[in-house]
Order: sequence, then C-alpha cells, then structure tokens
Amino acid sequence: MKYFEDFAVGETAVLGSRTVSEEEILAFAGKYDPQPFHTDPEAAKASIFGGLIASGWHTCAIMMRLSVDAMERAMEAGVGSPGVDSCRWLRPVRPGDTLTLKREVTEAWPSRTKPIGFVRSHMEMRNQRGEVVLDLVAIGMFRRREGAA
Amino acid sequence: MKYFEDFAVGETAVLGSRTVSEEEILAFAGKYDPQPFHTDPEAAKASIFGGLIASGWHTCAIMMRLSVDAMERAMEAGVGSPGVDSCRWLRPVRPGDTLTLKREVTEAWPSRTKPIGFVRSHMEMRNQRGEVVLDLVAIGMFRRREGAA
Repeated sequence: MKYFEDFAVGETAVLGSRTVSEEEILAFAGKYDPQPFHTDPEAAKASIFGGLIASGWHTCAIMMRLSVDAMERAMEAGVGSPGVDSCRWLRPVRPGDTLTLKREVTEAWPSRTKPIGFVRSHMEMRNQRGEVVLDLVAIGMFRRREGAA
Repeated sequence: MKYFEDFAVGETAVLGSRTVSEEEILAFAGKYDPQPFHTDPEAAKASIFGGLIASGWHTCAIMMRLSVDAMERAMEAGVGSPGVDSCRWLRPVRPGDTLTLKREVTEAWPSRTKPIGFVRSHMEMRNQRGEVVLDLVAIGMFRRREGAA
C-alpha cells in the first residue's frame, strides 16, 4: 500500500488517458448539465463554442475516474477528499478528444485528530494537442501507516 | 431574458431541491468514482464513512442540474463557466438525502473583450437536516444586453 507517509512533495505522475465520445458527453449532460451546447450538437454550432462541448463537471468526473484507476494501480490508501481549492476549465473538451491527466504533489500534512494525512495536488489534464483543458488543485486524504501517529 | 446586467451583488435565491437515490449514487460512482465507499454498500459500512456516500463530483453534478433547471426557469442568458474558485464537501451525502441549493451573487464584472459578463456566486447545498453538504464558489458567464458594451 501507498500510505500518506509515502507521498513526496514535488513528485509527479502521468495518471492515465481517456478518449471522450459524443455519446458520453450527451449522456452526462442530459442528466446533470442540460445546457444546449452540452446536449444538442446543432444548437451547439450556433453557440459561442461553435460545436458540442463536454460539461465542465463531466471533465472533472473523467479526471476523477483516471485518478481512481491510477490510485488502485498504485494501491494508494485513499479515504476521500474534503474538497478542491480551485478548478479552471481552460479549453472546451469536444467529442473525440483524448485527455491525459498529470498530477504533481504540492503539499502534505498529517491530521491532528485522525490517523490520516492530507495531500494537496495540482492536477493538469491536456488534450491530444497538448492544450490544458482542466487545471485543478485538489486535496486528498490518505491513511497513515499503522502506528505512525 | 435575465442578462448580465440584471444580476445584483447580494441577491440570493433558493434554486431547487432533489432527493438522491442509492441507485443514482451507485450509477454515477460506477462510471466516474469507483471507490468502495461510493460503489459497495457493504464495504462502505466498514469505511470511515460508516455507509454508502455519494461521490463529491456527483454532489457537484446535482448542484449543476439544480442550477441549470433554475437558470432555465429564470431565462438566464448563461454561456458557460471558466471554473470554480473553491469547493468543499463538508458532509457526506447518503442515499435518501434531500438536497436544497441556495445561491448568493457575490461579485459581477463585465468582460473587457467579449459581449458577456462574469458573475461570481456562493453556492450552498444543505441536506434535509439543514446541514451544509457542499459549499462552492463558482463563476458563471452571461450574455450582456445588446448594445450594452
């Protein structure tokens, strides 16, 4: 297992990639973000985005899935998250885009009251042209090694 | 239509409510956040959460759906968002919880280059016991009245 103590400030990793389909964009937006530029390819053409784009929350959800899959591969002892410090949707995500997620650990501190620690990470997701589509600062909670506290 | 110019700093509104089912929690998490405390009711009992909880990103997606539905009712001229300034998942969301979303406009400023304006809002989502489960500061973009620029 990778515990809180095993995270080093400055460590970076490419967590994975995923291609986003139009079908998936429409399905997510239909449930959670039914604005025409997310749900209607024709209406989206007339919008300021010039075509269908993924909901920003869908982009975040994809980021999360890539993170969780990577967490499982690395056997990280994750126990949730208190939140996100900032999130910027810098460029639209369009059908067929392939997104690649990179994480850099920027801070780590132990809880004063629980056998866990907090890890702050800078997450950057780029499309197939190397353009950053999502820039996010997230906090994760991880179990400590037994007896570490 | 409610344009950028029609938002007033300090205005508050209750945007809507929604009850979250276990089925929906499992479906979202299975796709986007497959950590055991989001996907497996039995495993979740043994977690620090003591039972199944919704993915934080699912909570954000529900917040977005309530916002979009309210935006449509109020005919707000929304054209997307550059991002979120902060997001805190303050309490777990559990199956059967009924969430109610409140928005307060905290800042509004016009774009210098485009016929839109930015509106910063403090979003607060509470459960049926009045406990805040999500506290979020979001930025929305809205069209300006024609000729306003």
